[in-house]
Amino acid sequence: MTRYQEVAALLRQRIEHGVYRVGDRLPSIRALCREHAISISTAQEAYRRLEDAMLVEARARSGYFVLPRQAPAQLPAVTRPAQRPLEVSQWDQVLELVGMNRDHGVLMLGRGIPDLDAATLKPLQRLLAGLYRHGDALSASYDSLIGSLKLRQQIVRLATTSGCLLHPDDVLITTGCQEALAIALRTLTSPGDVVAVDSPSFYGTMQILKANGLKAMEIPTDPRDGISLEALELALEQWPVRAIQVTPTCNNPLGYTMPEVKKRALVRLAQRFDVAIVEDDIYGDLSFVTPRPRTLKSYDDDGRVLLCSGFSKTLMPGLRVGWLAPGRYRDQALHMKYVSTGASATLPQLAVAEFAAKGHYERHVREMVHRYQRHRDILLGWVGQHFPQGTRVSYPQGGFLLWLELPEAIDCIRLNERLAEVGVRIAPGSLFSASGKYRHCLRLNYAAALTPETAVAVRQVGEVAEAMLREEAELVG
Amino acid sequence: MTRYQEVAALLRQRIEHGVYRVGDRLPSIRALCREHAISISTAQEAYRRLEDAMLVEARARSGYFVLPRQAPAQLPAVTRPAQRPLEVSQWDQVLELVGMNRDHGVLMLGRGIPDLDAATLKPLQRLLAGLYRHGDALSASYDSLIGSLKLRQQIVRLATTSGCLLHPDDVLITTGCQEALAIALRTLTSPGDVVAVDSPSFYGTMQILKANGLKAMEIPTDPRDGISLEALELALEQWPVRAIQVTPTCNNPLGYTMPEVKKRALVRLAQRFDVAIVEDDIYGDLSFVTPRPRTLKSYDDDGRVLLCSGFSKTLMPGLRVGWLAPGRYRDQALHMKYVSTGASATLPQLAVAEFAAKGHYERHVREMVHRYQRHRDILLGWVGQHFPQGTRVSYPQGGFLLWLELPEAIDCIRLNERLAEVGVRIAPGSLFSASGKYRHCLRLNYAAALTPETAVAVRQVGEVAEAMLREEAELVG
Ligand SMILES: Cc1ncc(COP(=O)(O)O)c(C=O)c1O
Ligand SMILES: Cc1ncc(COP(=O)(O)O)c(C=O)c1O
Repeated sequence: MTRYQEVAALLRQRIEHGVYRVGDRLPSIRALCREHAISISTAQEAYRRLEDAMLVEARARSGYFVLPRQAPAQLPAVTRPAQRPLEVSQWDQVLELVGMNRDHGVLMLGRGIPDLDAATLKPLQRLLAGLYRHGDALSASYDSLIGSLKLRQQIVRLATTSGCLLHPDDVLITTGCQEALAIALRTLTSPGDVVAVDSPSFYGTMQILKANGLKAMEIPTDPRDGISLEALELALEQWPVRAIQVTPTCNNPLGYTMPEVKKRALVRLAQRFDVAIVEDDIYGDLSFVTPRPRTLKSYDDDGRVLLCSGFSKTLMPGLRVGWLAPGRYRDQALHMKYVSTGASATLPQLAVAEFAAKGHYERHVREMVHRYQRHRDILLGWVGQHFPQGTRVSYPQGGFLLWLELPEAIDCIRLNERLAEVGVRIAPGSLFSASGKYRHCLRLNYAAALTPETAVAVRQVGEVAEAMLREEAELVG
Repeated sequence: MTRYQEVAALLRQRIEHGVYRVGDRLPSIRALCREHAISISTAQEAYRRLEDAMLVEARARSGYFVLPRQAPAQLPAVTRPAQRPLEVSQWDQVLELVGMNRDHGVLMLGRGIPDLDAATLKPLQRLLAGLYRHGDALSASYDSLIGSLKLRQQIVRLATTSGCLLHPDDVLITTGCQEALAIALRTLTSPGDVVAVDSPSFYGTMQILKANGLKAMEIPTDPRDGISLEALELALEQWPVRAIQVTPTCNNPLGYTMPEVKKRALVRLAQRFDVAIVEDDIYGDLSFVTPRPRTLKSYDDDGRVLLCSGFSKTLMPGLRVGWLAPGRYRDQALHMKYVSTGASATLPQLAVAEFAAKGHYERHVREMVHRYQRHRDILLGWVGQHFPQGTRVSYPQGGFLLWLELPEAIDCIRLNERLAEVGVRIAPGSLFSASGKYRHCLRLNYAAALTPETAVAVRQVGEVAEAMLREEAELVG
């Protein structure tokens, strides 16, 4: 046993014997160092072990806390998607979610939108206003194709916290993370190719597969630690997979973060089969663990990981500032970027760069992580109170999205239709599957302030689900 | 002979007999109406005839003027591209033009950038600043996929001047016109398909063909009135053409506007062969003719024209606000838009909408048309003075781009390399061909203020070309 394993084992014993109880604050890193005469990094590693085991949880600026032995509600079991490559459908339902005019009367519980009212965002608005007011002709013109150097430098700086050593020339600015994903996938594939994805998976990526005539090989995924490497290996053996697309940190929709050993193993597996990985890290900086978990890209030593990210979840979606670190595919990615939208808008890039350079980014993200973690716990409480028995929920390690598995009898498309009547919308689970699986699942968002109206809306979702279940039982009975 | 043909014939006679001499102002529309007891539209039609014949030219706010019998320099002959579908190359050279970091020391004579210093643009900056300063959470969030209704309403209003009757739901906001073109072409084609294009053709569109594995069937094009319908018909008979892509109004790079009868005929031809048309109208509002010429779309009665445009040439490229009216392909186009970049940035859309709603758009464009027309004549003069004998130039009917055909011996890629030494860059002609034709051609931009430095730079281009010609002759001799 290494030193950190010993310390972790000791702490685990104390938790199990009730020395530290549920909700208790554990010794600080410093205290642990003193107690066991270990280094800071050893102490951190010990806590990381316990976090991976879901025994403790880090809360920003407060330290580590003992988690309930039973997570607030049961976690869903490993997913069981189809066992062969599929064409992607579900566009009509995605369009219903993303195509809607924003209707002020409707409470959108399902969208992937961060808290946009935070005071820590205000400096960004000021920067944007100033730049647009005083921008010169250069900034009103076309930017260079790769994007503003100032912003790429800040991205490189911020990426060090996820273990990535990038050069500004390794980064390509895109129009949102969506364009980064589209470019990455189009760079790697031709129509008819197979792409392996974690499942459930972000509908935006699934629809990229559809639009490009690609097939999705959906891989069983554990809601606690991500894509099954065994199932993935089997798929790589059986099918001509051209790329692996995953969201391993603060996953959308499941909320898990893959443990670091598993991340490393995934990269090695891709190397063994000589397949590229498209890594979506858009929620990564919103991890509840500090320092934030490493990216797959940080284990990539031969340029096969195409890291996609952006500022839509950490700052504002409306900026449409994303980025791509395309590894060894830089030349093709640059071409794809050019034909897709040309150079990106200049001033939003400069505003984000300034915002980050002045330390506002880290401040804002710290604040949000704190808030989202609190909101998660509140929402979990509400779900526990108001949802039908047998409902199972995810336990997000970051971000602001909660995944619910309702009893199988409930069709969440119909649930959503019925909720429309009371002015509430959720994101039905089938959006996250190639072929309409996860019909009894749904996604909720806990980013915005959890107001009394939100509480009512969440209760309504639970009650309508309950009612549907009753009706179903009556029909059968 | 119809009435307007009679009046046109009479005016032509008077010009030829020297009643009106080169540079003279012709009778106003009103005066013509009185003199011949005709309606305003008949008088306009008569002048349009004379414009098509290049005998007179309209100048914004001043009326019609007699043109020199000999255009300032000879127009190039009909282009002669390859006679079969080709794969597109030339990416490296395009990248050199669009990928460059803006270097303050270099005078870019070749980029497609409008005048960004105009006072009439200032209200747009103010609007942008105000919106970013005071924008609410909604405008910082995702817009609806189709784009802001306010902007779509303004686009519909402005499009009436080109004879288009659109509904706001027919318009889809995109990230620049580039995305509109990419969406339109991807909606219509699959890899391996053939697309007919006017030639020379905007390199951005050519590179879309390349990125999507499409083949370009380059159609001979008359620098005075556009794509040869005879050659196009032949191509449609011989090859499985899936789409026709043209820029019929204020063409980039040739500057012509197709006469309206020819536009109508093009749409009918497409109908006969049941082929869709991708119409690029991004320079259309910058026509030197008032009211601006009609679009192909205005003749489209079965939804086969996909009209692509945007505000990069009339306002600012850095806004990245473009649009697409996809006709009967709306559903597929919406899907392509979603997977390409998701919803477009909200606030630039609102700013453009406000700018247009307040009448600033028309005011600014009027001002620019006036300026560009003057600049064209100045630049033509400089070219006449400084370029080698045998140089032929276009005579732009709008926009701010001039096309030059130098003596065949001059390779404009090399010319550009040599110009780099003196800090000047042009756009080499080969960018505008699938296969590197037009090597002895180049494009210049006359949008920005024609300062003494620009005059020197233009002279340098001419002188270096002259020098290359001499060296060539010595080598041969
Ligand atoms: C996992 C994931 N990736 C990418 C995106 C798209 O991000 P952007 O809005 O920057 O295009 C989203 C947004 O919903 C997302 O949830
Ligand atoms: C003919 C033509 N179409 C489209 C574009 C692209 O426009 P945007 O900058 O709006 O993407 C250009 C710009 O150079 C152009 O010249």
